[in-house]
Amino acid sequence: MSGPHFLHLVDEPHRERRDAARNREALLRAAQQLVDVCGVDGVTMDAVATAAGVGKGTVFRRFESREGLMAALLNHSETEWQAAVMSGPPPLGPGAGPWERLMAFGRSRLDTTLLHADLIREAGRAGTRSYAAYSFAAMHVRLLLSELGVTGDLPLLATALMAPLEAPVLDQQVRIEGLDVDRVYAGWIDLARRVVRSPS
Amino acid sequence: MSGPHFLHLVDEPHRERRDAARNREALLRAAQQLVDVCGVDGVTMDAVATAAGVGKGTVFRRFESREGLMAALLNHSETEWQAAVMSGPPPLGPGAGPWERLMAFGRSRLDTTLLHADLIREAGRAGTRSYAAYSFAAMHVRLLLSELGVTGDLPLLATALMAPLEAPVLDQQVRIEGLDVDRVYAGWIDLARRVVRSPS
Repeated sequence: MSGPHFLHLVDEPHRERRDAARNREALLRAAQQLVDVCGVDGVTMDAVATAAGVGKGTVFRRFESREGLMAALLNHSETEWQAAVMSGPPPLGPGAGPWERLMAFGRSRLDTTLLHADLIREAGRAGTRSYAAYSFAAMHVRLLLSELGVTGDLPLLATALMAPLEAPVLDQQVRIEGLDVDRVYAGWIDLARRVVRSPS
Repeated sequence: MSGPHFLHLVDEPHRERRDAARNREALLRAAQQLVDVCGVDGVTMDAVATAAGVGKGTVFRRFESREGLMAALLNHSETEWQAAVMSGPPPLGPGAGPWERLMAFGRSRLDTTLLHADLIREAGRAGTRSYAAYSFAAMHVRLLLSELGVTGDLPLLATALMAPLEAPVLDQQVRIEGLDVDRVYAGWIDLARRVVRSPS
């Protein structure tokens, strides 16, 4: 646990001491579990402190504010998702065929975008999905399309496949129009089939 | 021209006197011409006043700030675009076949989104594209898909076709990745062909 002398340097994570990093990781895990069970609204600094078994002051020292915690959760979730795509179990990770991997990508991206839309809203100015994160996902779809033998302008087709899974389009369908997530996913599978099948 | 006693009531446009409305329209036309020639950056309160042949005070009375002017331009542009789709000349308006209308829709939506992304950025909190505007476009695409004999979940397919033409996806491709607008449009045509052709 970090002592009161610990100073969190936002742009210099490499300077974090090892125990501080472990502490941070434990707090993020506790916060993530709260999100899974209670949704983003259920994540307060108090609740995270209680769930992680630390004092509320520790949570504030680590993340400065609820906004800061939300931004850290966003970053953590994106990193975990990338790890799952690169080296997690199939069908999202390697080991399944490209169509199965594409379907798993679509579903997990859909769920992740909806979660992240909540986090971004709560994180305020601290939370914007990074361009690097988007590029990673675009490259993954592009490689899967290539493995599937799709011809054409693959970077643009990858963007077209990803666009309906991005906030604010998805957020609007699900939160404003009240569409069922499963229906949106079924619609996306239909789109993917149309994009992937060879020209007749 | 509105006298100094005129008070602009933001939420009560129906109270605008007729000459004030004409004045407003002339200022917006002048501002739109400046956008077309110089881009959004070239639109200052001074430039609009000069182009419309009125005093700078008049521009400030009508729009309060440059942000207010940008928000008004955004609204004006969206309304004009809807009018062009509903009753303007073909192929964007009625009178052309559904495929030609869809292609014209894609191109004009692409250009309009890029312009509006600039306006929204400059309008700050005053400028968000309305849900009603999005719904209008979605309904139009859905009707064209229906006329083209496309089967499936048409509202979702319409959303999928529109998604790559929305900011921030489009903004990212063109402004960050530096893709040529014509290439993005060609990619969108390819997507539309894949969505529209009947299942093999």
